[in-house]
Amino acid sequence: MKLGLCQMPVTADLKQNHAAMRDMVQKAAAQGCDVVCLPEMWPCPYENAAFVAYAEPERGETWQALRDTAVECGVYLVGGSMPEQEGERIYNTCFVFSPKGEQIAKHRKVHLFDIDIPGGQRFMESDTFTPGDHFTVFDSPGGKLGVAICFDIRFVEQFRAMALMGAKLVLVPGAFNLTTGPAHWELSFRMRAVDNQVFTAGCAPAQDMTASYHSWGHSMICDPWGRVLCSLEEEPGLLVQELDLAQADAIRGQIPILKNRRTDLYRLDYTE
Amino acid sequence: MKLGLCQMPVTADLKQNHAAMRDMVQKAAAQGCDVVCLPEMWPCPYENAAFVAYAEPERGETWQALRDTAVECGVYLVGGSMPEQEGERIYNTCFVFSPKGEQIAKHRKVHLFDIDIPGGQRFMESDTFTPGDHFTVFDSPGGKLGVAICFDIRFVEQFRAMALMGAKLVLVPGAFNLTTGPAHWELSFRMRAVDNQVFTAGCAPAQDMTASYHSWGHSMICDPWGRVLCSLEEEPGLLVQELDLAQADAIRGQIPILKNRRTDLYRLDYTE
Repeated sequence: MKLGLCQMPVTADLKQNHAAMRDMVQKAAAQGCDVVCLPEMWPCPYENAAFVAYAEPERGETWQALRDTAVECGVYLVGGSMPEQEGERIYNTCFVFSPKGEQIAKHRKVHLFDIDIPGGQRFMESDTFTPGDHFTVFDSPGGKLGVAICFDIRFVEQFRAMALMGAKLVLVPGAFNLTTGPAHWELSFRMRAVDNQVFTAGCAPAQDMTASYHSWGHSMICDPWGRVLCSLEEEPGLLVQELDLAQADAIRGQIPILKNRRTDLYRLDYTE
Repeated sequence: MKLGLCQMPVTADLKQNHAAMRDMVQKAAAQGCDVVCLPEMWPCPYENAAFVAYAEPERGETWQALRDTAVECGVYLVGGSMPEQEGERIYNTCFVFSPKGEQIAKHRKVHLFDIDIPGGQRFMESDTFTPGDHFTVFDSPGGKLGVAICFDIRFVEQFRAMALMGAKLVLVPGAFNLTTGPAHWELSFRMRAVDNQVFTAGCAPAQDMTASYHSWGHSMICDPWGRVLCSLEEEPGLLVQELDLAQADAIRGQIPILKNRRTDLYRLDYTE
């Protein structure tokens, strides 16, 4: 399979964001990508007020733009994330579409981003969002893929669960910031890959220092040995990488981590 | 607290290893260390035949040398590991002594090191050892400390469990090799620290290219933000670092990982 990550510029203009999304997915498809992933919160600025203002229901305008783009470009489209309204509640949600336009997965961010670093970043996503209630793995022609959103990557239980559910590649729309990005972004993608002997891919919005929230960017793909296969810096860009998910099985044969878990001593129960 | 890691030279001569151990712990105590940690399998070469030949029961000669050294030097001594014989079985065991000579903890390696990399390392610890059946956390004046041995660090469940049991620093006698060391040693110590917002410390035997097993060395201490505070290279050496374990609580306040685990969606049950 060929994976494309769209490190999109994100503005306050929904139409402009839609156009940029469609443009980058078209470019990825033109380069032969089968699976294309968008960043976290690509339709709107990363701020609590915007999450409320830009929230849309499932099957709304942004959902339809994603579905139409998947069909037009003939790709599996992992739709980054958007604020999804359901009744009174807003979720940080990733919709996934097949090239036929079927919605084949939906992940709502399970762990909301609450951070308060003296002299650094403060952001309380839980002021606005309701967290999701399940982990997400779906089938693709290249193998099973998992989806997690940003802060979810800090939780070992979620990644272990996705690996046990069969994921060989975990896609993570994410927007680390200028405090957590340099400290933990690359480290996290490399180590979750090593922990579970899966490929990991992080797709971030491009950095915009005129925005209220400064995304670290640095979209990245790691292999199951924890090597960074490719990455971007802060600027908008498209990252394209050919992947053979069977490499995950080869690494699992060399160092049997999943197999040698001591399930007689510990047990991870989870909701699929 | 002041922590000392003894990156010892290890030979095939048990008496010489005992003398080197006592010498390094004395030096650490002279530098004011309260807690001193030894490497994995410091009494003998890292080979399955040696594990059998050098195996001793609890309260044997090496156990007594550890206890006497803890008392003589007035330190908490985390005794690296040694092959421990109990009946027909051999374990890879870490004994921990208080400055009064009490055995206050005993960790038997839970995950045995079985690896088979084409063109790289092959080692089957499970040919010789029986694995342990519990996780290990003990009290010290500086706070609760956890102990894991080498390959144990690859298992997210064990480190999560030790953090939930209260550990603020996890000590890991370990001997990565020249394949896994450059790839995963530093990454693992940094990321287990970030995952659980604990200090981590890895203590390895010094590298000896005339031995059958080539230890990576690189003993290292990381803080709960995932920074490498200090490290050695391959040569024998003593690593000494002042630590304030309350920093773990501060980091946990800034990014609430342990607190924000979705225990309504997943649950880790384990044997203490």
